[in-house]
Amino acid sequence: MKFIRYGNPGEERTGVQIDGVNYDTSFYGKDYDENFFAADGPAQLAAYIKAHQNELVTIPEGSRLGSPIARPSKIVCIGLNYADHAKETNAPLPSEPVIFMKSTTSLVGPYDNIVIPKNSIKTDWEVELAVVIGKKASYVEEADAHNHIAGYVLHNDVSEREFQLERNGTWDKGKGCDTFAPLGPYLVTPDEIADINNIRLWLTVNGKKMQDGTTANLIFKIPYLISYVSQFMTLLPGDVISTGTPAGVGLGFNPPVYLKPGDVVELGIDGLGTSKQELVAYTKN
Amino acid sequence: MKFIRYGNPGEERTGVQIDGVNYDTSFYGKDYDENFFAADGPAQLAAYIKAHQNELVTIPEGSRLGSPIARPSKIVCIGLNYADHAKETNAPLPSEPVIFMKSTTSLVGPYDNIVIPKNSIKTDWEVELAVVIGKKASYVEEADAHNHIAGYVLHNDVSEREFQLERNGTWDKGKGCDTFAPLGPYLVTPDEIADINNIRLWLTVNGKKMQDGTTANLIFKIPYLISYVSQFMTLLPGDVISTGTPAGVGLGFNPPVYLKPGDVVELGIDGLGTSKQELVAYTKN
Repeated sequence: MKFIRYGNPGEERTGVQIDGVNYDTSFYGKDYDENFFAADGPAQLAAYIKAHQNELVTIPEGSRLGSPIARPSKIVCIGLNYADHAKETNAPLPSEPVIFMKSTTSLVGPYDNIVIPKNSIKTDWEVELAVVIGKKASYVEEADAHNHIAGYVLHNDVSEREFQLERNGTWDKGKGCDTFAPLGPYLVTPDEIADINNIRLWLTVNGKKMQDGTTANLIFKIPYLISYVSQFMTLLPGDVISTGTPAGVGLGFNPPVYLKPGDVVELGIDGLGTSKQELVAYTKN
Repeated sequence: MKFIRYGNPGEERTGVQIDGVNYDTSFYGKDYDENFFAADGPAQLAAYIKAHQNELVTIPEGSRLGSPIARPSKIVCIGLNYADHAKETNAPLPSEPVIFMKSTTSLVGPYDNIVIPKNSIKTDWEVELAVVIGKKASYVEEADAHNHIAGYVLHNDVSEREFQLERNGTWDKGKGCDTFAPLGPYLVTPDEIADINNIRLWLTVNGKKMQDGTTANLIFKIPYLISYVSQFMTLLPGDVISTGTPAGVGLGFNPPVYLKPGDVVELGIDGLGTSKQELVAYTKN
């Protein structure tokens, strides 16, 4: 099943995508949030939909897609989790996963604009496979980790490299700016993905291929990551772990290449759909 | 006004403390969360209470106190914001604020136990003054920052130094463990504090004074911090900025001193009350 949310920012309604068509599910009365995932919502809603598929109503033409999940308690990101990306940023291969956090206020929809922050000179892209937690996870064993997954979602882990690396703080400073986490188009349940450890992910800027990798190259795999993060903090249903980006980010070019207003970023992961964001300058609204 | 929350973990009800007595305010029907602060809740509730003070009911004897605010969207912490603390950790004085984030799942009440994480050998204490945001803050000017403050609260920024500094990641790894953010006893509105930049904060371990500082020594002051953080991420009503700790943490001793099961930490800030936590070993529950 593919779960979507649509409508104006902050007023999103829930839906599902079936055979490429988006249907409303707001009659179900539950946003895709911590309570929904904790109560086995995806399976229950899927069963309901199966029984009532003829009654589904398509969403209004031209609707904006929002993040396919409501604002989670946290977005945990894994740094340097592809060998080629670690190399391009001149970082050593991590001996254990690098963890940082993205402010949840950075969450936006898959086709929303990315706002270049005021005083930003190094806004960069990162295509990533993100995992959404389905069941509370604390000190989870790697072998049990799959029981804690609600699904997978495409994520652009937008990053401001000066804020992240040159402004005297942890990476968090350059990761959580508003609009820096375009998520979606949809949350895909694990049954729809044949082999999560062998799917392609790619990203283009203005039509030019910048990233083209495969999750086969993940240094630390998803079950290990869930187990690992859950040793340091409890993961709640709806929480996001973003698993890292392959080579080809702007920081890795010589000289580096960063995003400017008018640039268009497109990205995709096999089975998880594609997203597209236009870069705009910050303006006070 | 002093705002409290009381009751079992996850089932907290709201209250206020007046002249040292805790009263229930759950009749008001609003938890102390983002919506409450966004809707000018503290002022409105205070006005209501003034008009109905004779009708207030005290909270049940022996009630547990929870965090005085509901789970926020984020807890942003400022590192190395007292010169003596930067020195004791062998870190240079920051040229601009160090930011890191604490998982909001670490939030607990002021008298709850602190659970030493599995495999932890370096659990440490940090008394801190925390600011709760009252009004959405994005690119806020320093001169306007006071309009974005709901109040102040005592915070023990519990830290696992091995996780934070030696486990190949950002500081976040050692800051967000469950129970690592005892908050409270109460949220105090700014009108009750004569000079937030000149109040004493202290912490003892098993009765021995470990930290004894004053906010007069904050390198970066609160209005600057709100303005600064709001350049990197939008602060929502109810969000927390913890402003850093003075000298005297376990890491600063030679050799370092860390917490073990049975230890008791007490801390306080003039005008913001005191809190007390016992250390316990992790056990699967």
